[in-house]
Amino acid sequence: MFQIPDHQVAGHKASKGIIGPLIDNSGRFYKPLQSNNRGSKEESFYKKFSSNTEIPNHIRKFFPTYYGTQHIEASDGSGQHPHLVLEDIVSVRTNPSLMDIKMGSRTWYPTASQAYIVKCFKKDSESTSPNLGFRISGFRVYGNEDSGYWKPERNNVAGFDTNDVRIALRKFVSSNSNDLDGESDCAFVQNVYGGPNGVLAQLLMLKKWFEDQTLFHFYSCSVLMVYEKIKPNEDRSCVTIKLIDFAHVVDGQGVIDHNFLGGLCSLIKFVSEILDN
Amino acid sequence: MFQIPDHQVAGHKASKGIIGPLIDNSGRFYKPLQSNNRGSKEESFYKKFSSNTEIPNHIRKFFPTYYGTQHIEASDGSGQHPHLVLEDIVSVRTNPSLMDIKMGSRTWYPTASQAYIVKCFKKDSESTSPNLGFRISGFRVYGNEDSGYWKPERNNVAGFDTNDVRIALRKFVSSNSNDLDGESDCAFVQNVYGGPNGVLAQLLMLKKWFEDQTLFHFYSCSVLMVYEKIKPNEDRSCVTIKLIDFAHVVDGQGVIDHNFLGGLCSLIKFVSEILDN
Repeated sequence: MFQIPDHQVAGHKASKGIIGPLIDNSGRFYKPLQSNNRGSKEESFYKKFSSNTEIPNHIRKFFPTYYGTQHIEASDGSGQHPHLVLEDIVSVRTNPSLMDIKMGSRTWYPTASQAYIVKCFKKDSESTSPNLGFRISGFRVYGNEDSGYWKPERNNVAGFDTNDVRIALRKFVSSNSNDLDGESDCAFVQNVYGGPNGVLAQLLMLKKWFEDQTLFHFYSCSVLMVYEKIKPNEDRSCVTIKLIDFAHVVDGQGVIDHNFLGGLCSLIKFVSEILDN
Repeated sequence: MFQIPDHQVAGHKASKGIIGPLIDNSGRFYKPLQSNNRGSKEESFYKKFSSNTEIPNHIRKFFPTYYGTQHIEASDGSGQHPHLVLEDIVSVRTNPSLMDIKMGSRTWYPTASQAYIVKCFKKDSESTSPNLGFRISGFRVYGNEDSGYWKPERNNVAGFDTNDVRIALRKFVSSNSNDLDGESDCAFVQNVYGGPNGVLAQLLMLKKWFEDQTLFHFYSCSVLMVYEKIKPNEDRSCVTIKLIDFAHVVDGQGVIDHNFLGGLCSLIKFVSEILDN
């Protein structure tokens, strides 16, 4: 009944001896509760968020639906383990291209332990996070039936600089992503980044909320962009933007999440520039 | 001809043995070039900014006019020293109330030396900067002819938490700032924070520019708010917002200044909330 999802671009992937997320065939995603209180913190976020009546519906749709927590057999064969039961955003699609972007110029929250801050500080510094306010954690682009998916090496992505991020964001909406030497053709840029339901429009909607909301600070949270390739001229958008990974969400205590918002504005600028070219 | 300005709320103040800014009686402010290349970096910023034709006029007015660099007798009696000659924003006013707000959740730029980062990191962490995206560096509020100015102790300001920042931003637009026990009356809130030329409108204009500009990253730069008290019902605004202190400005390299922008959005939220109450 449960299987290992095949579209993951970042995070721990289930394999022999490693616990990871599972999916079923009814469109649900089972994320094992992480250790170190991370799992319970993420569960607690989903519960608070689900029951919070202040979240407008047009914002709620940016978050995976939470169906509760359930004990199922862990992917590593270690026995029953609690899993968050979530909406499966990706696997229900046929040939999804996806990108995981970790938001914020820093991934640690001010009240974290010194050891955790030092660890995050180092990792952040080695990435584009301090400079861009976000970093690409991973992506894969569907080409066509013959070529299948193109996916950069994870180590490669970890070393991205500003220019690599620009190239990746162009590659993500190109029909020739497999072509490593050629210039990306950005054939899908208008369909995916542009239009009334495209990435830019959705990110701007999120931005408006982040300028005002003081409920949550989303440290180390990702924006997941998912779309399916259709003919470049077809005027229909099928782009999904979701926020994922809430193990480090803290109470906003009446202050906006300037760390997420700054990175969001930066990402919006990158996407706008690609659209304008 | 030169004298020590009397309205400073943050930064090095000129006194015996300490070099500091001077003013003349023609509305110019002489800022001694700082050591450690800071002075030359600030001078270089003013030169670049002055000559950059991409800066729209409605944004240029947020920066002090730069009249060049001039050697004059230093305030500490150490002889001739180069000074940036700038527009004097404050001293030309009669009874200015002012607040200096250091922007950004971090005050260090990614390419700074390890020692400098460690120093800033520590200082930032002890302030509201990581949490709010800005910190109040100092302020003074004019009461009336009898009471004169009210100014908190510098050490006191350095220890401000989120709640103190809220109180200070209310006190700044109140007629009873001297009254330490009473609730601030916010008598001037509409005149100063509201209206078409008030603080909020001006900060929103700045925000729009920061969402787009990729020329400069303004680390450790301050927003200076200045106004003069007029009768609360008088419908005339005389609020000046200026950015000051550019010793740590770096080239934006095609990326927006999400660090400044995030803090600016946070400050906007604080000001909006005070207006809404």
